[in-house]
Amino acid sequence: MLHIVIMAGGSGTRFWPASRGRRPKQFLQLATDHSLLRETYERITPLAPPERVWVVTAESTAELSRDVLPELPPGNVLGEPMGRDTAACVGFAAEAALSRDPGAVCIVLPADHVISDGAALCSALAAGARHVETVGGLLTFGIRPTAPETGFGYLLLGGREGESNGHPVHALDRFVEKPDAATAAEYLAHGGYLWNSGMFAWRAADLLGEMERQLPRLRAGLAEIATALGTEAEAEVVAARYPELQRISIDYGVMEGAGQGWILPVDFPWSDVGSWPALREVKEADADGNVVRGRVAAVDSRQSILVSEGPVIGVAGVEGLVVVATEDAVLVVPADRAQEVKTIVGKLKDAGWDDVL
Amino acid sequence: MLHIVIMAGGSGTRFWPASRGRRPKQFLQLATDHSLLRETYERITPLAPPERVWVVTAESTAELSRDVLPELPPGNVLGEPMGRDTAACVGFAAEAALSRDPGAVCIVLPADHVISDGAALCSALAAGARHVETVGGLLTFGIRPTAPETGFGYLLLGGREGESNGHPVHALDRFVEKPDAATAAEYLAHGGYLWNSGMFAWRAADLLGEMERQLPRLRAGLAEIATALGTEAEAEVVAARYPELQRISIDYGVMEGAGQGWILPVDFPWSDVGSWPALREVKEADADGNVVRGRVAAVDSRQSILVSEGPVIGVAGVEGLVVVATEDAVLVVPADRAQEVKTIVGKLKDAGWDDVL
Repeated sequence: MLHIVIMAGGSGTRFWPASRGRRPKQFLQLATDHSLLRETYERITPLAPPERVWVVTAESTAELSRDVLPELPPGNVLGEPMGRDTAACVGFAAEAALSRDPGAVCIVLPADHVISDGAALCSALAAGARHVETVGGLLTFGIRPTAPETGFGYLLLGGREGESNGHPVHALDRFVEKPDAATAAEYLAHGGYLWNSGMFAWRAADLLGEMERQLPRLRAGLAEIATALGTEAEAEVVAARYPELQRISIDYGVMEGAGQGWILPVDFPWSDVGSWPALREVKEADADGNVVRGRVAAVDSRQSILVSEGPVIGVAGVEGLVVVATEDAVLVVPADRAQEVKTIVGKLKDAGWDDVL
Repeated sequence: MLHIVIMAGGSGTRFWPASRGRRPKQFLQLATDHSLLRETYERITPLAPPERVWVVTAESTAELSRDVLPELPPGNVLGEPMGRDTAACVGFAAEAALSRDPGAVCIVLPADHVISDGAALCSALAAGARHVETVGGLLTFGIRPTAPETGFGYLLLGGREGESNGHPVHALDRFVEKPDAATAAEYLAHGGYLWNSGMFAWRAADLLGEMERQLPRLRAGLAEIATALGTEAEAEVVAARYPELQRISIDYGVMEGAGQGWILPVDFPWSDVGSWPALREVKEADADGNVVRGRVAAVDSRQSILVSEGPVIGVAGVEGLVVVATEDAVLVVPADRAQEVKTIVGKLKDAGWDDVL
């Protein structure tokens, strides 16, 4: 049967001060009044009942995830004692799904993306799942690019191999790392390069079979964990074994070398909301081009991202600025330098101001 | 004997979000860890004991003033039911001082200026007080200008009439409204124009005599209040009569037409800290030219005013910006547009967000 695996393990500092160590991006309300995790869950509810929805997240955010998704059986939230990259993450979920359902087919998707057209998403996901359920292999969903983005990895389409529910399915040629601007422009012109969305579909058994072949040590570690799943020893075994799992991405660790790799291209609007300025992609701007959240008074200001999680923000005469305010911290940075949030966070760490990290 | 009158009635929005309706500028810690009112008091302690220090402030901030200056007898904090400009304010204080001391000489000074050289200030104030104690008349202190400021009123020096404790004393020619830039440059070149500091000295009886002559209605209202001072009826009479007092400045209402008007020129560093960017005049900048208060992490940022009253502020890549954060509000405005804080506050008022005003 169809299982949904939501990867909610991300951490990171790009959304400081809203995101914190104990409240990473997927728990933020960026596009709507719901957290990205909640939105991700709600988008896929047409595909599977809560009993077959899994969340893999950091152990430290497992309780928060259960609070956000009270419909899920608590055991469906799998806590990672530490992040071991995406291969371990999806393998963990595959073992969990298999432990309940020997015929499990998994759709895997990140918790922190914004996709407004849920119907288009579900149609594509269902088609991908149906394809792998029928013919096996590992399938990844590729987004048709709309701009020469340098912030994403790309997938290269192989030949068209078939169709599922009206969606063409191609062979997966290869994964390509984030390109420079010139290369990204070539990719866009070429037409055969898609954005790597981080969404996948496979039979759980097929994924673990490929891991057995390509990453036998990882597979062995997961198998040990699998034997403990649902028993009293689960927490202890996970805590002991998970940190030893090989740290490698599903893309390069398994997908690229898979016996049968597929790409299902999709072209619905999609954003990974990679930084504060990307809020513009998922939230409508006002007449002055400002993207506003919370109580904000903007005087003669344009093209800015003005986000409050509590305090009133008053700005005048600013342009292209990011201002984010929480109860205990404020960020101000030009939109075109938003990547420097990392540097700020580093400086806060150096200063020992851990209360705001 | 010598009395000190601190005018702490100012309100205003130029220091939003730090200043609020119930906490105007004189209660802010702008230059040091003490409020401007406290600093003003501490500067003049060599001149008079607490029993002869008076504070005139809004009724709504009288308790706060007593908290800031616990040394003062509570009755020395005079609460104005509403602001009636400076003539009423200094008249009120003169009546209060006279009610205890028929020979009272008053030095009057605003609560919200920053003067780092307290000794120079006290020397000048004492000299001015000595002058009026000896020869009578109303004396104002003028600051020798160091720049063609358009934000201040000016005083025009008359002829030199004498000297007090080594300080020359001139006749007061006239008060001049805030000039435009060209006129301010002329004033600076001329040499006879001084900044109007808002500091004064007079015998209380002389001031009230001039009011009797020039502003008889105001004087009559004050006299009614005077009869109630120190009695059980004080609060009631002040509440009833004060709002009826004539609204006029001491400069144009009394000083300019006084039988004997004096100017004592001073040249110590002085700032009225008129807006956030003026913090630069009273607080040392760091190596990047940033004036910083509170927990601030500034990355590659210059010439900015970064003030926190609680939240951590993180900025990167900004220049010439004012960022002020309190627990419930944040201001971001370029320093050269700091006057637009008023517009922001107006917008907050329109939005009904009175909790941050």
